[in-house]
Amino acid sequence: MTQRQTHSPIAVHKNSVATEDTGYVAGIDLGATNLRLALADMSGAVLARWDSSTAGVRGAEAVISLIKEGVESLLQKVSAPREALKAVAAGAPGITDVDAGIVIATSYLMGWRDVPLRALLEDAFNTPATVDNDVNLAAIGESWTGAAKGVRDFVFVAIGTGVGASLILNGSPYRGSAWAAGEIGYMLVPGTSGIPGDRGEPGALESMIGGEGIKAEWQNLWSAESTALPKGLTATQIFDHALAGDALAQTLLQQTARILAYAIYNMTLVLNCPLFVLGGGVGMHPALCSETQKMLEKLNMRTQPELAHSALGTDAQLMGALRLALDTAGSLRR
Amino acid sequence: MTQRQTHSPIAVHKNSVATEDTGYVAGIDLGATNLRLALADMSGAVLARWDSSTAGVRGAEAVISLIKEGVESLLQKVSAPREALKAVAAGAPGITDVDAGIVIATSYLMGWRDVPLRALLEDAFNTPATVDNDVNLAAIGESWTGAAKGVRDFVFVAIGTGVGASLILNGSPYRGSAWAAGEIGYMLVPGTSGIPGDRGEPGALESMIGGEGIKAEWQNLWSAESTALPKGLTATQIFDHALAGDALAQTLLQQTARILAYAIYNMTLVLNCPLFVLGGGVGMHPALCSETQKMLEKLNMRTQPELAHSALGTDAQLMGALRLALDTAGSLRR
Repeated sequence: MTQRQTHSPIAVHKNSVATEDTGYVAGIDLGATNLRLALADMSGAVLARWDSSTAGVRGAEAVISLIKEGVESLLQKVSAPREALKAVAAGAPGITDVDAGIVIATSYLMGWRDVPLRALLEDAFNTPATVDNDVNLAAIGESWTGAAKGVRDFVFVAIGTGVGASLILNGSPYRGSAWAAGEIGYMLVPGTSGIPGDRGEPGALESMIGGEGIKAEWQNLWSAESTALPKGLTATQIFDHALAGDALAQTLLQQTARILAYAIYNMTLVLNCPLFVLGGGVGMHPALCSETQKMLEKLNMRTQPELAHSALGTDAQLMGALRLALDTAGSLRR
Repeated sequence: MTQRQTHSPIAVHKNSVATEDTGYVAGIDLGATNLRLALADMSGAVLARWDSSTAGVRGAEAVISLIKEGVESLLQKVSAPREALKAVAAGAPGITDVDAGIVIATSYLMGWRDVPLRALLEDAFNTPATVDNDVNLAAIGESWTGAAKGVRDFVFVAIGTGVGASLILNGSPYRGSAWAAGEIGYMLVPGTSGIPGDRGEPGALESMIGGEGIKAEWQNLWSAESTALPKGLTATQIFDHALAGDALAQTLLQQTARILAYAIYNMTLVLNCPLFVLGGGVGMHPALCSETQKMLEKLNMRTQPELAHSALGTDAQLMGALRLALDTAGSLRR
């Protein structure tokens, strides 16, 4: 297992020269707190990046304006005209109808319901566009150029504030009959409640192994006698302290790893997938990956899946978006 | 929900007349205690059936001899020569490598390991053969002519002595990277142990909702004060008594339904499948199906899956085998 990546694995090719007939695609990662864009040439080489906070930006129109501002800035950076943009693709943090290009529901950021994001992007840029769920994009990114390169069947498990998964089966995302495959944040395993909460509230699994759930559990277990650490720590800080030897932090790391191992075990039984890639701010932590691997080994499976952490880190979605944009542009050329 | 089927849903077409150039296929359901065969014409109409106990029959050669005896008897019934047999397909109760035609492992009946069943059948009948796991065949049967007719994505859940599932995704069985998808008998949910047993022993879920597990739990809960019923009852007898009003039997039915609902809930989260078909001797019981549906509704899912019980009952595997044999014969004609 390698160390957690702390810098971007996407190399920006600064010396690329744009010619008049060069084409470009833009990838858009529309997250809960940040908007992140990248521009690539038709070979997939990343030429420029642009980030912005989405604090205070709520409605679809405001988000589209911000995306336009970013994409125009990127095209200027490479001295390319608007017409050189051949396609865009965007990931949204919620259930997304890929065929219709509609973000059906997201509990983050904007609380969007049935937003026709693809049509809005196509209007804004006068190019073809594709939209997908952000976890699916991260899986596509890892499959293209990350930890699952060339792997036909795997599951990407994203653990940040939220918990979700993307299934790549026979080389393609399996999205489910209502675009909701991989919504594992609600999974019920030994140690979670047997009574799911209301819809919209964190699910049983998410409230135990999501970033907020881990923070809350730390506060719950915390006492001045049990640890010298402060009561207010994030999940990754707690895992860092577990590595450094704090006993309470280790208890919490092991509890999280056990519950995550149960979820991966159940998914392995159902899908018999050989690889799980852990991503997201919490999922990327190397201590969680190695502890979960140990727990899985104790579960004594017939075919033990491999566990890897995301190679692309926070860029996984953006790389997936670029790949989807390239596919979108390519499908027109055919 | 309709009543449990107590007789065979496969109509035997007694008045079909075989001509010299008529072709036939044989379906083989190789179960833990019974061998069941059916002969069909190339339109899939079942012309004759043959059953035998497999008590005392263990080795692969003895099983092949018995299959030969059965198929020859079927061909005689329709006055057809051996050359009229165009293909055979068999389902085995264990993990089966469909590409190689090998039964990798089964914990039932014969304890086979790496038996090249397809080659043995091809040698025995001098026809092309296909082999698959019995639960996959049942799912194919239900998809062809049963409760999941025309449904692109569904899960068949077989509950008898064992507990297993077959995933039909995008219209085809999804078998997993080591042919072990759907091995849900080991699933961990609230109420099961968090420590799986040894391999080869009944899994956590199976030991709660499989036929033997339910019987054992009944004996565990039984006391002369709590019920007027005998201590030795089968799972389906217990469910019958639950319908008739026995309080202890109702407790056991509800416990089984709750655990099964958790497993279906988890699979729905992962796959977002719209339909689950319950089959197998225990799974077919109408009381289990309706109680599990009620439990699922309490779990308050975003997209509630439909629950149906098998339309083909104990013939599901046999119909799946006939369908696979027809496909095998058809793929040669092309």
